Amino acid sequence: MNAALAEALQASAAAVEAELDRLATVPDALEARVWEAMRYSLFAGGKRLRPFLVMATGDLFFVPHDSSVRAAAAIEMIHTYSLIHDDLPCMDDDDLRRGKPTNHRQFDEATAVLAGDALQPLAFRTLLDPATDPSADIRLDLAQRLARAAGAEGMVGGQMIDLQAETTSYDLDQITRLQNMKTGALIAWSCEAGAILGRATAREREALKAYGLDLGLAFQIADDLLDAAGSAEEMGKAVGKDAEAGKETFITLMGPEGARKRAEELVAHAVARLDLFGERAFLLREVARYVIDRRS
Amino acid sequence: MNAALAEALQASAAAVEAELDRLATVPDALEARVWEAMRYSLFAGGKRLRPFLVMATGDLFFVPHDSSVRAAAAIEMIHTYSLIHDDLPCMDDDDLRRGKPTNHRQFDEATAVLAGDALQPLAFRTLLDPATDPSADIRLDLAQRLARAAGAEGMVGGQMIDLQAETTSYDLDQITRLQNMKTGALIAWSCEAGAILGRATAREREALKAYGLDLGLAFQIADDLLDAAGSAEEMGKAVGKDAEAGKETFITLMGPEGARKRAEELVAHAVARLDLFGERAFLLREVARYVIDRRS
Repeated sequence: MNAALAEALQASAAAVEAELDRLATVPDALEARVWEAMRYSLFAGGKRLRPFLVMATGDLFFVPHDSSVRAAAAIEMIHTYSLIHDDLPCMDDDDLRRGKPTNHRQFDEATAVLAGDALQPLAFRTLLDPATDPSADIRLDLAQRLARAAGAEGMVGGQMIDLQAETTSYDLDQITRLQNMKTGALIAWSCEAGAILGRATAREREALKAYGLDLGLAFQIADDLLDAAGSAEEMGKAVGKDAEAGKETFITLMGPEGARKRAEELVAHAVARLDLFGERAFLLREVARYVIDRRS
Repeated sequence: MNAALAEALQASAAAVEAELDRLATVPDALEARVWEAMRYSLFAGGKRLRPFLVMATGDLFFVPHDSSVRAAAAIEMIHTYSLIHDDLPCMDDDDLRRGKPTNHRQFDEATAVLAGDALQPLAFRTLLDPATDPSADIRLDLAQRLARAAGAEGMVGGQMIDLQAETTSYDLDQITRLQNMKTGALIAWSCEAGAILGRATAREREALKAYGLDLGLAFQIADDLLDAAGSAEEMGKAVGKDAEAGKETFITLMGPEGARKRAEELVAHAVARLDLFGERAFLLREVARYVIDRRS
């Protein structure tokens, strides 16, 4: 990984973790356990890719970090809730996530359901607070778009399609739509959020959103390739589960070579969207490469 | 029940159901199943108490029904998601709700988790849309308060405390706090929402919120009394589960007579908060009586 990107990823991760630490404090009260479960998963590591994207796109427009870090914390809360619920026995039934027990293994199923449930409104509260941006219209725009990206039109809808993949055979267009909803929507929101906070033009905003959507899809294909080839140790979670479940993926539909090529094309597409921003978008170009070159 | 109240309950229920029907349409797409599951529980009946409270408090300030019905739909979405998740095998493990199979029995557990997950952002989208109110500040206020009422500080926190009730012995103050969070927060929000939409004074707003909190607690005590005395047929769900699980309730702590008396006091308190509004608050007084006199 490029050294400047590594530094920027680390800096945005540290900033968002400090913000999450402030926003999710455990009260000295009977409900402490649900906050502990929320924090357990919020601080279970991870690449913090979405927070980085919010902050890096915000930097294009000189958005104050105090502002972009809040939007970054909000998207990480939504992402974290989705992982907690995805890991549940009735969903993917995973015992490990990033090398640690999943939330319901560390606590229990009911607590994991509640921790996920509580992270959603906490994300909205975080975004809607005046500290995110003084303008009510900007906060409303961010929250409305997040509600769409996280809901049945976006991430949850993609999850629903994915659940049916074990019994339904999807074609490439359908898998693409599934992944655009399941993974792409939140990543595209992260890229658009920086533009919204930065009062970007419609053209800049659309370019960053499109960059995010391409990036999200490339990210997912890379995930599929790692799932097919990687070891559980490197990935910190069970691998090969898709093939075992008989699910169609980019790999089963295009072969590993075809999928790899498609990911490369998507990254080239994504990077081309950044021409508008010239040299300033350097880190966003680098992260697009990293997304498909990563080992875990 | 007073005839005017019965008519008003029916009218607000019909209005909110029509609004829910518009807001949750099943797309002709692969994710249709999650929308079907959301609609299944949204239209599974119920008293529609929270929507009534939003609309009736809104009426005190001549809030247009096109506006209050949206806030009413939003709170019903949150309430519905909470019921879907509460009924899950890892939570209350209920097979019946309002005499019909619970969501996970009608669909499956994974779909029920997702349907609940998707109702939350749909509620926020509904509130945040300009159709709810032209003023961005009003919409933000509603959504921020809802996020708090529905989150770990409110409903979900209450659920967490309730889950621990099987193994922890709570005293009356703790049970009261539990119920204020679990049930009271959303009911109080419903009453405050009409005041927010109606640009009420701080004094009017606080009075309606306090009315809602007292009403919510009275409602819960009445539920406990029905659970202890009622039949499964009348309630449309399993009864006597709290006692079986060895949980403290208002009944175990105060006895049925004491609990009944406490509910009466709370209703008297709630009704006294309405003095500010004179004769216009007639329906809100009636519904407070109904809440503790109901049979199911």
